[in-house]
Amino acid sequence: MKKIETLIKRIIQRVNINLRELEFDVNLYIDDVHLKCRLSKFYAFYGVTPYHKLSFKFINSSLAGSYFLGKSKIDHSILYKSDIRGDELKSKGSTYRYKDYEIPVYDDEEIQITDSILIKTLVHNFSHDPESLEIFHIKNTVSTHFTNIHGSSTEGCFLGPFSTVDLTTIHDCVLGEFSYIQVEELAHKKVNPGTIWVCYKDKFDFHYQFSKEILKKYIDFDSKNLPIGILMDFVENRKVDFENVFKFINRKNPVSIPKNTALDRYSVVRGQTRIGKNVLVAQRAYLEDASLGKGANVQENCYIINSHLEGYDITAHGAKIINSRLGEKIFVGFNSFVRGKIDKPLIIGNGCIVMPHTIIDIEEPLIIPSDFIVWGYIKNAEDLKLNGMSLESFSKIRNEFKLENMKFKGNGGIFIDAFKERIDHILHANGAFFDISDNNAGGHAQKNQNISFNTIQPYPSGDLKGIYPTMEITP
Amino acid sequence: MKKIETLIKRIIQRVNINLRELEFDVNLYIDDVHLKCRLSKFYAFYGVTPYHKLSFKFINSSLAGSYFLGKSKIDHSILYKSDIRGDELKSKGSTYRYKDYEIPVYDDEEIQITDSILIKTLVHNFSHDPESLEIFHIKNTVSTHFTNIHGSSTEGCFLGPFSTVDLTTIHDCVLGEFSYIQVEELAHKKVNPGTIWVCYKDKFDFHYQFSKEILKKYIDFDSKNLPIGILMDFVENRKVDFENVFKFINRKNPVSIPKNTALDRYSVVRGQTRIGKNVLVAQRAYLEDASLGKGANVQENCYIINSHLEGYDITAHGAKIINSRLGEKIFVGFNSFVRGKIDKPLIIGNGCIVMPHTIIDIEEPLIIPSDFIVWGYIKNAEDLKLNGMSLESFSKIRNEFKLENMKFKGNGGIFIDAFKERIDHILHANGAFFDISDNNAGGHAQKNQNISFNTIQPYPSGDLKGIYPTMEITP
Repeated sequence: MKKIETLIKRIIQRVNINLRELEFDVNLYIDDVHLKCRLSKFYAFYGVTPYHKLSFKFINSSLAGSYFLGKSKIDHSILYKSDIRGDELKSKGSTYRYKDYEIPVYDDEEIQITDSILIKTLVHNFSHDPESLEIFHIKNTVSTHFTNIHGSSTEGCFLGPFSTVDLTTIHDCVLGEFSYIQVEELAHKKVNPGTIWVCYKDKFDFHYQFSKEILKKYIDFDSKNLPIGILMDFVENRKVDFENVFKFINRKNPVSIPKNTALDRYSVVRGQTRIGKNVLVAQRAYLEDASLGKGANVQENCYIINSHLEGYDITAHGAKIINSRLGEKIFVGFNSFVRGKIDKPLIIGNGCIVMPHTIIDIEEPLIIPSDFIVWGYIKNAEDLKLNGMSLESFSKIRNEFKLENMKFKGNGGIFIDAFKERIDHILHANGAFFDISDNNAGGHAQKNQNISFNTIQPYPSGDLKGIYPTMEITP
Repeated sequence: MKKIETLIKRIIQRVNINLRELEFDVNLYIDDVHLKCRLSKFYAFYGVTPYHKLSFKFINSSLAGSYFLGKSKIDHSILYKSDIRGDELKSKGSTYRYKDYEIPVYDDEEIQITDSILIKTLVHNFSHDPESLEIFHIKNTVSTHFTNIHGSSTEGCFLGPFSTVDLTTIHDCVLGEFSYIQVEELAHKKVNPGTIWVCYKDKFDFHYQFSKEILKKYIDFDSKNLPIGILMDFVENRKVDFENVFKFINRKNPVSIPKNTALDRYSVVRGQTRIGKNVLVAQRAYLEDASLGKGANVQENCYIINSHLEGYDITAHGAKIINSRLGEKIFVGFNSFVRGKIDKPLIIGNGCIVMPHTIIDIEEPLIIPSDFIVWGYIKNAEDLKLNGMSLESFSKIRNEFKLENMKFKGNGGIFIDAFKERIDHILHANGAFFDISDNNAGGHAQKNQNISFNTIQPYPSGDLKGIYPTMEITP
C-alpha cells in the first residue's frame, strides 16, 4: 500500500479509538479516495519574518496547500489547505498569569499537530490552557471544511464543517457542523450541529440552537460527500479567484496600501477596494469592492464584498460580510454570514457584537442599532427582536433568561465585558492602534507586512507520492 | 554590521589567505555592495524526486536564485543564481574503480560548499578524485559569472567568468576568464585567461591559447565591474525571457514532449521548437526555434537558437549554438560559442568534437566535415584549417605537434579515444539510449521528468536580511 493510504487509515483509526465511547465512526465522513487524489496537487508554504520564531518540523506528513507561520511541528498528519498561524505563541522567559498563579514559560511555545487530518481548517494559537503553556497540541483529530481551531488544544476529536472550537481544551468530542463552543474544557461529549455555546464557570452560559431546517439550507453534511448548502456554495463559487493568487511566486499589491498595513499576497483583491491604515488582511481573505477603515482586520477565510467597514472592525476567521455598511468597532464572530441586499445594504451601527456563527441574511432593508448584540438567524426586523438586544439590556441580565432559541444563565454584564475585553485584545494584537512613533514593532498588521514565503512540495511520484520530505527549519 | 556583510568579508578573506602566495586579491574583483543588494531579490529552489537522494542542509548562507538537486550541504556561503546539480553522486555501497583499486563507497556522496561565493556558477558533480569519494568539496572559493565547476573539488581558488574547471582537483589556484582546465590536479598556479588545457599524465597534453585581442572582444574582465563582451551581452540580452519562467509556481510544458524526455520547467522555450525522445533540457537552458533530435541534451546555461540537432548531440554546460545545423553525435564542449549566419547556417558533420571553450563565429558559410575535432577561434574556412583536424589525423599524432596557437604532446589516439569514451558516458548518463522496455529507471532525461520544486527565501528584513534560515531536509 502507498504510504499516504497507510497514513490516512492510521489517523482515522486513532481518532475512532478515541471516540469509541461516542460510537462515532470517522470512516463514514471522510472520503479517503477523494482526499488521497487531492494531496499531491498543491504546494504548501511557510512564512519567514524577523518577528516570528522560525522553527518548523515536518515529519511524515502531507501538507497540500497549507500555510505555516511560527514554531510548529507536524508529525504523521494530513493538512489539506489548512492555515496554521502561530503568531501569538508564547515566548520563552515570559510569564503567564492565571488567576493567582504566575507561571513562567520555560520554552518557546510550539504548535504540535500529530496523527491528525485537518481539511481547510484554520488553526490560530492564542491558547489559554494553563496546563500546557509550551505546547499547543492537536492530536488524533479529524477536522473538516472551514473548521476553526482557535486557541484550543484538541485530542481525539471529530470537528464537522464550519464548526469552531474556541479557547477550549477538548478531548474525545464530536462537534456537529456549524457548531461553536467556547467552554474552557470539554470531554466525551457530542455537540449537536448548529449549537452555539459560550460558557465560563458559574459566571455565564450562553446557548443558542439553530433549527434543523434553517441549518440544512446553509450547511448540510451527513456523509462522505462534500458538505452542501449556501455557505459551501458561496466559497466554492469563489475558489477560482484564488487559483490566480497561488499561481505566481510573488505578486505586487493589487491596490496601494498605507505603511503599517499588511495585505497578504495570498489574499484576493477585486473591484474598487480601498484599504486603510493598520489593517490586517490575512492569507485566504477575499475582498471585492470593499472599503476597510483604519485598524480593520480581515482574517483567514473571510469575505468582504461590496461593503464598507468604518474602522477598527474585526472580521473573525471565516466570517463573511456582503452588501453591508458597518460602523466603527464592530465584531463579527467566526464563520458568521452577514448578507444585505445589493440595492438595500444591511446597516450595522457602531460597537455592535455579532456573535460567532450568526446568520444575518436579510429579505428587506434592516438597520441594527449601535451597541447591539445579535446572534442566531436574522432575516428581517422581526427576527432581530428575537435574536438581538442592546448591550445595555443584555448587561442587565441576571440568573436565567430565554429568547426564542437562545437561553442564558448567569451574569449578562460579565458576558458583555468579557466580549469587549476580547475585542480590545484582538485589535491590539492586530496592531489596529499602532502609531508610527511607537517604539515597538506593532501587531500583526505591522509584523506581517514584510514576510517571505517558501513553498514546499510532496514527492511527485512513487510510493511516497503526496508525502512531504522530512524538514527541520531553524533560524 | 549586517550578517550578510560579515559573511562576504569572511569568505573573501579566507580565499585571499589561500591565494597569498599568488599575491591575488579577490577584493579587486568582487563588488560586495552590488552583490549584497542582489541577494535578497530572488528565491532559491531545490528538486524533490524519488530518484535523487533527498538531503539538504543550508546553514548561514545566502542562496539567491540558486538551484539544488541531490545530497548537499551549504555552509557559510553565498550562492547567487548558481546550479548545484548532484545527479551523479555516488551511492553508499557502490564501488569506485581506480586503476587496480576497488574502493567501496562508505556513505552517499555529498556536495559540500563551505566559505565560498559562487556567482551564476554551474556545479555538476561527476567527480573522479579517488581520494575523496564521499565528499565533493568546494571550499574557500570564489567563482564568477558562468563558471563551470565540473566534477572538481576546489579549495582556495578564484575562478574568472566563463572559466571551467573540469575533472580536476584544484587547490590555491587562479583561473583567468574563459580558461578551461582538465588536468587531474593543480595547485598554486595562475592560469592565464583564454587558456584551454587538457592533460592526462604522460599520455597527452593539449594546450591552446586565445590571443588577448580576440578574447577581449568576447569576454573582458579586469575589475569589480561586470564582465563585458559578446558572450556577456548575449546572455544579458536574454535575461528577461527567464523572468517569466521564474514568476510562476508551476507551468505546463510550452511544447508537447515525448515520454522519457525531460524539459525542465525552469528552461525557456520560444518560437517553433521541436523536442525529440530521450532528450534532457536542463534548468536555465534556452531554446528558440530549436529542433532537438532523439537523445540530445541541452545542459544548464545552454542556448540553442534557430538550429537543428540531428540526434545524440551533447551541448555541454554553457555552450551556445546559433544558426547551425548539426549532424548526429556531436559534442559541443563547455561554454563554446557556435554561431552561424541567419541566412547561411554553419553546418557540422556527424561525430564532430567541438572542444570546450571553442568560438566558431563565422563570417562566411562554413561546413565542418564529419568526424572532425575543432578548437580555438574559427571564423572562416581558413581558420578551420588552423584550428581543426579530422579525428583520424589527430589520432595519428605522436610526441609533439603544433598548429597555430595549439600545442600537443603525447598520443593523439589516446586523446581522441578518451573524448569518445566520455561522450558515450554523457549520453548514457543522460538516458539518450533509453528504451521503454528497459528495466531500469533510465538516465537524467527519464529521472528528471517528474520533479517537484520547493522554493526558499531569505529573511526579508532585519539584521539577517538576505540570509536563509537554517534547514535540514531528509527523506
